[in-house]
Amino acid sequence: MKHNFGAGPCILPKEVFQEASQAVIEFNNTGLSILEISHRSKEFEQVVIEAEALVRELLHVPENYSVLFLQGGASQQFAMVPMNLLPEGGKAAYLDTGVWASKAAKEASKLGNVEIVASSSDKNYTYIPQGFSVPSDAAYFHFTSNNTIYGTEIFEKPAVGIPTVVDMSSDILSRVINVADYDLIYAGAQKNMGPAGVTLVIVKNELFGKSGRTVPTIFDYQAHAKAGSMYNTPPVYSIYVSMLNLRWLKAKGGVEVIEQENIIKARTLYDEIDRNPFFKGTANVEDRSRMNITFVMDTPEQEAAFLNLAKERGLVGIKGHRSVGGFRASVYNALTISSINALVDTMREFEEKTK
Amino acid sequence: MKHNFGAGPCILPKEVFQEASQAVIEFNNTGLSILEISHRSKEFEQVVIEAEALVRELLHVPENYSVLFLQGGASQQFAMVPMNLLPEGGKAAYLDTGVWASKAAKEASKLGNVEIVASSSDKNYTYIPQGFSVPSDAAYFHFTSNNTIYGTEIFEKPAVGIPTVVDMSSDILSRVINVADYDLIYAGAQKNMGPAGVTLVIVKNELFGKSGRTVPTIFDYQAHAKAGSMYNTPPVYSIYVSMLNLRWLKAKGGVEVIEQENIIKARTLYDEIDRNPFFKGTANVEDRSRMNITFVMDTPEQEAAFLNLAKERGLVGIKGHRSVGGFRASVYNALTISSINALVDTMREFEEKTK
Repeated sequence: MKHNFGAGPCILPKEVFQEASQAVIEFNNTGLSILEISHRSKEFEQVVIEAEALVRELLHVPENYSVLFLQGGASQQFAMVPMNLLPEGGKAAYLDTGVWASKAAKEASKLGNVEIVASSSDKNYTYIPQGFSVPSDAAYFHFTSNNTIYGTEIFEKPAVGIPTVVDMSSDILSRVINVADYDLIYAGAQKNMGPAGVTLVIVKNELFGKSGRTVPTIFDYQAHAKAGSMYNTPPVYSIYVSMLNLRWLKAKGGVEVIEQENIIKARTLYDEIDRNPFFKGTANVEDRSRMNITFVMDTPEQEAAFLNLAKERGLVGIKGHRSVGGFRASVYNALTISSINALVDTMREFEEKTK
Repeated sequence: MKHNFGAGPCILPKEVFQEASQAVIEFNNTGLSILEISHRSKEFEQVVIEAEALVRELLHVPENYSVLFLQGGASQQFAMVPMNLLPEGGKAAYLDTGVWASKAAKEASKLGNVEIVASSSDKNYTYIPQGFSVPSDAAYFHFTSNNTIYGTEIFEKPAVGIPTVVDMSSDILSRVINVADYDLIYAGAQKNMGPAGVTLVIVKNELFGKSGRTVPTIFDYQAHAKAGSMYNTPPVYSIYVSMLNLRWLKAKGGVEVIEQENIIKARTLYDEIDRNPFFKGTANVEDRSRMNITFVMDTPEQEAAFLNLAKERGLVGIKGHRSVGGFRASVYNALTISSINALVDTMREFEEKTK
């Protein structure tokens, strides 16, 4: 039994793997594999329709927003957002809370003027900047709601008074949000939505064509919206598995229910980090992420010993990102409380053995 | 038993489906699903390395070319090609042999000047234009080697004297090519390489940065080449299944062997089309595709009756594209000669019943 704490691509529910595996042999009584059916078949069109409907239902997406399944990951959105929303010569405001936020800003700066309204790079992104102001003449404000590497999360949308774009790659579907607070939400699937290879975009329709730029069709949100995410051959299997995972989430009771579980999972692990003298959280306590929990030990020797013990106990993917060191436990929707308990037990075992 | 003649996504070998299905439960003795492993794990890095090595081996790719696995399909290449190769204010030459070739030209025209050097649109793309000339000051010449909708194929690279870019989405890996004849080859995977969600690009390294444009990193071939197709999270499963399919092709004896099979399969079906008085090929005989075989009947009633009989005989995906009508049998690498025989038998059965 492995406990997968990987940061992404990451754990999905076992039931989803079972059904996803079966569909590779035969999909939906078609006599064909999901990998060989036409994306224009009735059967697959129904998958895309259901996936979109589930996103709308689970996140209570207002009618005046489009829900798109695209390719290229969040990194492609770093370019598509300014292509679609930033007029030539215009300005965009970015909040710098980590490497990914910073990359998003850098890509936008290739297409226009970017103002970094605040940054926490001075303390290796261990906190979320507060009290910054955003230029009212910027085309939009961009931030990253969860910073996977550093273990920080922004739960309240900053009140900025201009259109707001958020990269929710690592916390979408993990907690209740008010979609109407945002003009555009994007998220690489490979944390809480599905496997790698598909990207969720939720965009207010009135933003279409806002930049006034000539945009290649494949990078134009409106073209994808008009075609129901079938402008060209979509990533069939990644959308299918995402749909299965969204069904699983709905059957569990939806985002409202999973959020409560996620609160308990995160609290259980943070409590142990704060109690156990061998471990220390790295993120500012008020800004702690529920999705990625980062912690270190006093010496490299201790860390090597704990990593070894964790491996023996079946804990996978807990090594921290090199820019933070130590450990990172990613506790996405599909990770169960029993996996959290396995990690906490291992931390206690280490404490017992060592003291 | 279904015979899948679908145009793409399309048939892959049964052995590939079996192994691909198993890996969704457990991949390579990791205790984890292929859908939940990190793309930075040793195990998955090995998959990408093997996939690239197989493409290099099967197509005899010269060392000075990069082999990339990207997202977004051929449609994204319609934009990435001019972004990377067409200088501001520069000109590109396009051969118009169908809707896809025409779309490629249209997207390039958003980024620069496009000259259509020849078109077969006057006869609904039933033939390949000959004897056209290409402006020597164009940055590159672009053509589509196989026209899936119309059933035409270009086997010999036109001699144009300038860098040449080819969309080989529907015939890559089906026949021997000399990669060195081209400067850039691209292909959506979902015909002969693998499932939807990944795109193969083979690009001569000296082309990097040729356009002089400021290109978002995600659209820069060089960035993907430097990162070994891991600039950002790749489409893990689509690459994995492609790798399995490339292994299968190698075990069969490679492109040289499959080309001979493809010649026999196509000849068998064309012979029946030419012999059977109820069927008529739509493409110019000299330009007939080996991959997509298009044919019609005399009346809509006959076509409806034959489609019905074909369905009863387990023949899937043979309805023609709406812009050609009639039938299209896609006979990609994984389609066996026994499926061809099943189609030919059904055509003969129809003839017997009807005459």
